Amino acid sequence: MKIGFIGFGEVASTISKKLLDNNVNVLSSINGRSDKTKKLAKNSGIDLVNSFEDVALSSDILISTVSPFEALEISKKYGVLTNGIFLDLNNISPKTTLEIFDFFKGINETKSSNFIKGSIIGKISSKNQIIYLSGENSNDLLLLKDYGLNIKVIGSNITDASYIKMIRSIYSKSLTAVTYEAFKISESFNMGDEFFEVLSITEGKDFEIQAKSRIKSLKNSHERKYEEMSEILKFLENIQSSNDFKDNNMIKATQNKFKEIK
Amino acid sequence: MKIGFIGFGEVASTISKKLLDNNVNVLSSINGRSDKTKKLAKNSGIDLVNSFEDVALSSDILISTVSPFEALEISKKYGVLTNGIFLDLNNISPKTTLEIFDFFKGINETKSSNFIKGSIIGKISSKNQIIYLSGENSNDLLLLKDYGLNIKVIGSNITDASYIKMIRSIYSKSLTAVTYEAFKISESFNMGDEFFEVLSITEGKDFEIQAKSRIKSLKNSHERKYEEMSEILKFLENIQSSNDFKDNNMIKATQNKFKEIK
Repeated sequence: MKIGFIGFGEVASTISKKLLDNNVNVLSSINGRSDKTKKLAKNSGIDLVNSFEDVALSSDILISTVSPFEALEISKKYGVLTNGIFLDLNNISPKTTLEIFDFFKGINETKSSNFIKGSIIGKISSKNQIIYLSGENSNDLLLLKDYGLNIKVIGSNITDASYIKMIRSIYSKSLTAVTYEAFKISESFNMGDEFFEVLSITEGKDFEIQAKSRIKSLKNSHERKYEEMSEILKFLENIQSSNDFKDNNMIKATQNKFKEIK
Repeated sequence: MKIGFIGFGEVASTISKKLLDNNVNVLSSINGRSDKTKKLAKNSGIDLVNSFEDVALSSDILISTVSPFEALEISKKYGVLTNGIFLDLNNISPKTTLEIFDFFKGINETKSSNFIKGSIIGKISSKNQIIYLSGENSNDLLLLKDYGLNIKVIGSNITDASYIKMIRSIYSKSLTAVTYEAFKISESFNMGDEFFEVLSITEGKDFEIQAKSRIKSLKNSHERKYEEMSEILKFLENIQSSNDFKDNNMIKATQNKFKEIK
């Protein structure tokens, strides 16, 4: 079996290591990619072919690990070429997932059934990471379990894996905003240290490490996080009835919180 | 040494059990209290005297465990009578704590130095519960450690223990609102179960139990929690400069969230 990657960053490199250890043929191309990607791919020990067209045409499973912004374009350009399964592992919204699905459906039913959405929950490098899959033929990818990947199928509905990722993002980013605000208030009372101490009593001994990491994460990423929350809100408000709008209080406050950070 | 309680609910009953086990004389009065309190006090094995006046006059340490609403009145009425330490263990705001302190200060310096504010963090019945103390003479109560109580002195500033409790309340209630909102959104996608499953991967295996308990806790207490958030906001806005108002985003959203729950 041959598994091909379009894009070869940290995710592809980590997954391909496991696949190579299990004697799977892995291929990619470094044509036109960044120096960093080129180096990562060359050091990985995978087969490098001339172009992504070649990768797509020779793969039984083609995996897209590029970026949210490139995901749609890559699907249209290379996902369409493969005769096997096309798996998108990018962090894209349910809306973009559906756009890709509709594009394949416009070609034929086989293309859309063979399109599978995957969402990586947890750090790709960590032990307790899980790749959630959705799409009509997602059970076909359960064989990846035999090659060292932690796979779970949620359902046949193509958008399910994107929803999972979005739900996690909503919770996790709102919790970051809560932690940040409560800590800043504590600091204003000269009780920054006590904040971590007191909450560790009830929230567990990992609280301090996790909370500090959440607070620190905002330093350089609050603008990107603000944009992510805005995208999520826009998406939710489009699918919710007007009566439900008031239910997004915490997400809206999180969005505003990220905007105010200097 | 004699330790007296004004009010005898769950907190006083749990603490007095530990004190009695360590051969401390414990006393209270059930005059005019509820049937529930009378039963609890009678079964506890403590000394019951005729009135709270008698409790106050005979105690080396007088502990107030009534309710936030009664705390100020009890302090004025009985706290003032004792010649020993007066410890308030009620969940009162920094503002009420200061009111009590100022009242004692108006009498004399000894009264205000002997007033100590205590905040119980964690369930009173749990093992990892800590009683935080603040006030000029709070070190005098460190001897309670020898009688089985988990005591920590934060500082000599009388309001510190109230701030600690408030900070914890801000974090904990905002997290409840975040959990509730993210869960409701998940449910609207028919992904209620997946919400707990997916977040347990990154938030730890206790996540599901804790999250369900937070969500359930809102069912009957969202109105009380709304009022608590309103009190906290009012207090914060009074002490913060007008430029800081925007910093209470998450608390405001939490307040609104609790109001909307039906």
